[in-house]
Amino acid sequence: MDLQHAVALSALPGISRSRVAAVSKALTDQSGDDCVSLADVVAACRPDLDASAVVSEALTVASTLLKAAAAQGIVAIPRGRPGYPPLLATIGDPPPVLWVRGQPSVLSHRAVALIGSRAATPYALEVARRLSGELAGRGVTVVSGLARGADAAAHRGCLDAGGLTVAVLGSGPDVIYPAEHQDLAVSICEKGALVSELGPGAPPLQEHFPLRNRLISGISLAVVVVEASEKSGSLITARCALEQGRDVMAVPGSVLSGRNRGSHALLKDGAKVVETADDILEGLGWGSEPSAHADGSSNPCFDNELLEMMRPGESYDLDGLAVLFGDTGPVLLTRLTGWEVRGRVVRLAHGRYMRRPDR
Amino acid sequence: MDLQHAVALSALPGISRSRVAAVSKALTDQSGDDCVSLADVVAACRPDLDASAVVSEALTVASTLLKAAAAQGIVAIPRGRPGYPPLLATIGDPPPVLWVRGQPSVLSHRAVALIGSRAATPYALEVARRLSGELAGRGVTVVSGLARGADAAAHRGCLDAGGLTVAVLGSGPDVIYPAEHQDLAVSICEKGALVSELGPGAPPLQEHFPLRNRLISGISLAVVVVEASEKSGSLITARCALEQGRDVMAVPGSVLSGRNRGSHALLKDGAKVVETADDILEGLGWGSEPSAHADGSSNPCFDNELLEMMRPGESYDLDGLAVLFGDTGPVLLTRLTGWEVRGRVVRLAHGRYMRRPDR
Repeated sequence: MDLQHAVALSALPGISRSRVAAVSKALTDQSGDDCVSLADVVAACRPDLDASAVVSEALTVASTLLKAAAAQGIVAIPRGRPGYPPLLATIGDPPPVLWVRGQPSVLSHRAVALIGSRAATPYALEVARRLSGELAGRGVTVVSGLARGADAAAHRGCLDAGGLTVAVLGSGPDVIYPAEHQDLAVSICEKGALVSELGPGAPPLQEHFPLRNRLISGISLAVVVVEASEKSGSLITARCALEQGRDVMAVPGSVLSGRNRGSHALLKDGAKVVETADDILEGLGWGSEPSAHADGSSNPCFDNELLEMMRPGESYDLDGLAVLFGDTGPVLLTRLTGWEVRGRVVRLAHGRYMRRPDR
Repeated sequence: MDLQHAVALSALPGISRSRVAAVSKALTDQSGDDCVSLADVVAACRPDLDASAVVSEALTVASTLLKAAAAQGIVAIPRGRPGYPPLLATIGDPPPVLWVRGQPSVLSHRAVALIGSRAATPYALEVARRLSGELAGRGVTVVSGLARGADAAAHRGCLDAGGLTVAVLGSGPDVIYPAEHQDLAVSICEKGALVSELGPGAPPLQEHFPLRNRLISGISLAVVVVEASEKSGSLITARCALEQGRDVMAVPGSVLSGRNRGSHALLKDGAKVVETADDILEGLGWGSEPSAHADGSSNPCFDNELLEMMRPGESYDLDGLAVLFGDTGPVLLTRLTGWEVRGRVVRLAHGRYMRRPDR
């Protein structure tokens, strides 16, 4: 999709972003064509509006946003283009464009989200910091929301361990909220990224955050709830994750404080118990020691099915693999990432994959 | 079984108690006769011994033990006789005789075991105390092992809430270990009971405790692990409980201290998450508010199957119900207890049950 076109899609006045996201995905899925007509989307969402006026206004806004982004080194990645996180493309309402500040390449790494309360207990802060450091040590990118409390502890724990971390914002990538996280945001951008579906200058309105949450889970293979009370916003992210077919995991804690009631409710509903990063990796079928499963044979999640379908020397895009493998979503990507981690599959440019010759 | 005979069975010199328990159960199950020949048991366990000498010695010991018990108000209940806990009779190696100090009638109430570390954290002590008080408030007997730490907190929490509690000992019921729990033991006996498969005067030898653990789970419908590190003895009791078909539940706690690693391992293996007594009751299918399910209709665990098989006005013993219901073990007893709690079934003397006329 043409960049200005994609940005305009995410800036249609009078139409909610999530509705545009879902409708434009449905239309492109239907037509098989990456490029959806802006007027068609407006007509589908709001037949009462004058489509051409809406489109023209959106294109003007898009042009302004792209100029502002360029001036600040912010990149816009349209859905369907290389660099757009492949996992995010599998959700029901992927944003038409993703704005990235920092290193866009980090979005193609395997990632796990760590989330928790803003008003986190010292216990949750320590757990977030520790788990995040452990994940960093195992080459996993840590995704969170740059909020106070558990989010910030997760980002910092990852940075302290020399890892890559991604913050998903409920504002434009140049608008840091809370303001006290300005330095943290700068550190994240050095090797990681700030991402948002909102263009430069967008303020951190309250209604942005629930939508932001679907991106946190959308770019991650699993969501780990570090601490959540009964009405925590983290549970919204957990629900998004389940809808998106992601693994939901939770860290247990005190049953006396009430501060973990939401996490424990998730555990009662079958979320995986997380004590250490090994639990997360095992939950994802990656095993705690990738080297022990180098041939994939002893780990049922890495059965050879996918690998055998890929002919050595031939490269495949995700759509091609999805057809071969019979699954378009997280299962395919989890296995692909698993084989990639094991050095049996290599990721090429433009989102293509190739099987490495057998050793 | 004749009382002296049953006691002699549990005092056969040179044969381990657990072996005698399993063999005598197998022999009575085979013959359909409650009374197993002492000589047969000796012959089955130790064909190398002179059976008649062993039996004669055991009968002498039994006579001495029964006199000592009578002098201290300790009751001996042989397996197969009224008063023997019906759930305990369902395990693979039920003790031939149970020694009870306090109120033997408490052993016919529905019971849940709360167990945890001797070196319990303040968190575990508070959780044990609180859960135990909540269970007491819902008419559930709390079973534990009179040990320091979590056990003592469970007994005390129950007593403070005016509930009934049972302590299962690894010594004779007149030998209180640790000695500092003498007052606690006296309080337990007022409305609850101290029970043991060891007769009066038996010392608290280390090897008694693993065997004691199978009785804790054996007389309980569920075992709740309040706190257990990786190598905690509580995990032995949890394993016994699983072998006996009991529900195993665990309380989550800190993932940082390592003091809950055993409990979390149980949760990872599918143990139910316990935050409050309601979780325990729900886990057992009793619902958190029994009155809401008074007719049993809305709770799948109280389907009418069992009730409909019992003709009003007719009384049944457990064996009869087992044949009707097609299950001899915990499922039958859980449902029976459920209906009893709901006032639809009444427990008569000599372990017989009768359906109450429909309202």
